Amino acid sequence: MLGAHRVSTDPDPREEVTLDPADWADFRRLAHRMVEDMVDHLATLRSRPVWQPMPNEVRDSFDQPVPMKGQGAEAAYRAFATNVMPYPNGNLHPGYFGWVQGTGTPLSMMADMLAAGLNPHMGGHDQAPVLVEKQVISWLVQLMGLPAGASGLLVLGGSMANILGLAVARSSQAGFDLRQDGLWGAKARMMIYASSETHGWIGKAIELLGFGHASLRHVPVGPDYRMSVRALKEQIQADRASGLQPICVVGNAGTVNTGATDDLRQLARVCRDEGLWFHVDGAFGALARLSERLRETVNGIEEADSLAFDLHKWMYQPFDVGCLLVRDGDAHRAAFARSTSYLRSMARGVMAGGLPFADLGVDLTRGFRALKVWMSLKAHGVETFGRLIEQNVDQAQYLARRVAAHPQLQLLAPAPLNVVCFRFAPGRMEEAALNRLNEELLFRLQESGVAVPSSTALAGRFALRCAIVNHRSVRADLDRLVEAAVAIGRQLVHESHGSRAREAG
Amino acid sequence: MLGAHRVSTDPDPREEVTLDPADWADFRRLAHRMVEDMVDHLATLRSRPVWQPMPNEVRDSFDQPVPMKGQGAEAAYRAFATNVMPYPNGNLHPGYFGWVQGTGTPLSMMADMLAAGLNPHMGGHDQAPVLVEKQVISWLVQLMGLPAGASGLLVLGGSMANILGLAVARSSQAGFDLRQDGLWGAKARMMIYASSETHGWIGKAIELLGFGHASLRHVPVGPDYRMSVRALKEQIQADRASGLQPICVVGNAGTVNTGATDDLRQLARVCRDEGLWFHVDGAFGALARLSERLRETVNGIEEADSLAFDLHKWMYQPFDVGCLLVRDGDAHRAAFARSTSYLRSMARGVMAGGLPFADLGVDLTRGFRALKVWMSLKAHGVETFGRLIEQNVDQAQYLARRVAAHPQLQLLAPAPLNVVCFRFAPGRMEEAALNRLNEELLFRLQESGVAVPSSTALAGRFALRCAIVNHRSVRADLDRLVEAAVAIGRQLVHESHGSRAREAG
Repeated sequence: MLGAHRVSTDPDPREEVTLDPADWADFRRLAHRMVEDMVDHLATLRSRPVWQPMPNEVRDSFDQPVPMKGQGAEAAYRAFATNVMPYPNGNLHPGYFGWVQGTGTPLSMMADMLAAGLNPHMGGHDQAPVLVEKQVISWLVQLMGLPAGASGLLVLGGSMANILGLAVARSSQAGFDLRQDGLWGAKARMMIYASSETHGWIGKAIELLGFGHASLRHVPVGPDYRMSVRALKEQIQADRASGLQPICVVGNAGTVNTGATDDLRQLARVCRDEGLWFHVDGAFGALARLSERLRETVNGIEEADSLAFDLHKWMYQPFDVGCLLVRDGDAHRAAFARSTSYLRSMARGVMAGGLPFADLGVDLTRGFRALKVWMSLKAHGVETFGRLIEQNVDQAQYLARRVAAHPQLQLLAPAPLNVVCFRFAPGRMEEAALNRLNEELLFRLQESGVAVPSSTALAGRFALRCAIVNHRSVRADLDRLVEAAVAIGRQLVHESHGSRAREAG
Repeated sequence: MLGAHRVSTDPDPREEVTLDPADWADFRRLAHRMVEDMVDHLATLRSRPVWQPMPNEVRDSFDQPVPMKGQGAEAAYRAFATNVMPYPNGNLHPGYFGWVQGTGTPLSMMADMLAAGLNPHMGGHDQAPVLVEKQVISWLVQLMGLPAGASGLLVLGGSMANILGLAVARSSQAGFDLRQDGLWGAKARMMIYASSETHGWIGKAIELLGFGHASLRHVPVGPDYRMSVRALKEQIQADRASGLQPICVVGNAGTVNTGATDDLRQLARVCRDEGLWFHVDGAFGALARLSERLRETVNGIEEADSLAFDLHKWMYQPFDVGCLLVRDGDAHRAAFARSTSYLRSMARGVMAGGLPFADLGVDLTRGFRALKVWMSLKAHGVETFGRLIEQNVDQAQYLARRVAAHPQLQLLAPAPLNVVCFRFAPGRMEEAALNRLNEELLFRLQESGVAVPSSTALAGRFALRCAIVNHRSVRADLDRLVEAAVAIGRQLVHESHGSRAREAG
């Protein structure tokens, strides 16, 4: 029936094409080759350098115009195998301890293939993949010790999990019509408290959410790099006295610099007493709860109102998958749930059950990142993850002991978890010279391909920093790191003596 | 050397374990089986129902406690193959036209395996995967007609791309120290303008960014569902007169309801004249630029200050990958770039080159979602994507013609692109009854497994809505949809006559 709307006349129809392969057998052969090559890559990591710079011809290969004509799947794969696969970041390698990057696992690599193949739309709907994510969330709620009414969402990563956590905090604490009026509806500036050791996400979060840095108090830490609870309380009182509106305290479970964990029990108590939201950034530290032995390290995490952590760090999953859990599921939904006409929840059909995930965050279309977590927990079991996390902590303690026992190495911070900060310190050198020496040592170590630590600055001192979240590393890898660091350090001292001698001569 | 920090004594070391398989040959066999099964699934989609509800025993299988002991990779895969794989959302099927969901491709499924296997950390660093994403961005900049200085970022999806785009708009337009003071530093409420047909992301965005709905003007649309430029200008003037601060106009390239595209050239002119930021949501519509024939549909998109779109919709990629492009790369970096001590850019080593992606958004750890886009463009070429997009538009026009030609079907909105809204309208029925009939028709159609359209409300009328972003659909699938819809519609009329006859008897 012709409505008011004109429709075009029929053009001469062309043959209909598809992105499915013309020959499935060909495609199967290529797919199997990709699997073989990638398994070869993973099974032989140890025989290659941790990291290597790219030759110029590889670098130049990424400087071509957009391909108008297709070259076929084989050629596309060849380009990957030749120019990409040999030059990654290095984080899979047993000798990689830089930043807190995680490794991925062979099983989860295949789970990501299955997820991309099945490719369900993870806003919601009546489908099994939604039940997979719901089950993963319920497992994580249980593992983190939150109550049954807690809700959760898998997100791209820890930054987004933390940002959404603060958004729930803001929504719950507002006391005015935040959704309608925005921050301009507030009677006073809202204030957030986090230790000075908090990861850089906090800056991104307070900017994105519209608070600005004036809303963030960097509470000082003690020599153990844990938030001073006294300073926190004083700051809250001072801010209230100035007419500001404290809304949220951010606790750290495993800081990025040193692995320190704030006294979460005490922070929870302060929040209860002050009527504030208690958010915990447990990026990697939260996973210590998977080990009975280490659980006490993050005591109090189960008292969080919201908790953010990554599964692509200390649960060894491939990028990207983070998680936000919220103690009060209703508060979580109240912060985000909306409805629009083309997304109505329906009583029956595909759309039954509505959009449980879209209602807990900002993304509507989401991938099936739950699958790898679900299959990993089923395949390996919580106990295996707990044991691996203990193993990484034991390795860090081993490294700390080797550093402490070595006359030319110096431990620069406590190593309560899996992060070890140290430097080469041959004695009788000024701080500035030590910093220069250790920076050059870091470059040469990375360039050697033997080991990749990263660095940080602790009280002005340049530190080599190892964060061990690698299921492939063994103690022998840490031995190689220590020996290479000392050898390069001595070589640098030797070179510097040589150059001083030349200058003097 | 022992610093001030005590280290633990050596515990009795346990054997070190790993998540790599004990037997790589076993793992290879399982991985190949997964590939075979998933290719079978993709190659036989047409023989299965588009969607089917889950039996109760499947539903119940997701209600088990967290596995403490591992059951092994085989068992984990069996659970997937039995309980998950047969019950997805349906969006891969050639008979699925619901929402705007996209399908994925076999090649990109394998590319996601490669990405998860290589698993590079995509904050930045000196590695080939970073050059892959940079090349993809530069190709997309070129395809969208933005200048060479434009910057971009792959993100989880369109909602986040749009949110980040508005964050750049806010940063560029603020005129005060937004990063420090937040929205409280503004002299007046900031205002954003978008048509009433804008997707639900806009609500999420103005809430997350702290603006609140009071900062959003839903500009009315004409009968063609395009923003009224006159109403826009009037609203901007009225708001300025009231002391508000207009900052941004959001244009749509392909609305979700009807596929309408605003007059982007005119909107760009208004923005230039008024000194406002011009953001375009091109979720799927932006991709029309890949076709020379369709390019004029989204004329003016190349004048956007920021442009958000999805590659997992009309570029057929598996979830999740969206893209934000920003005309002025410096403005983009100014909105997000930060630095912290543990993330210092280094002159040499792994960290050379800094964090180009982390500096353009909020996520630090990101997956290698660029790879599938890169391999797809190399393998298939832009021309193939352009042709497929034309094919989907031709199919929508074909559907619109079939609807218009049928005495019992009614087209409910213009179909300028790939979205067709219609209903079964057998004549002599009131609007409320028609709405009830078409809702029941939708349920039965979805439950039949023959076709899955979704629905929307257009001027109070319940519409069956088909958005065609499916590279597997052919015209015959639309024939089946039309025939099934008419058959079910007639059956419903028949049932309703029967029940009225019974009532009358």
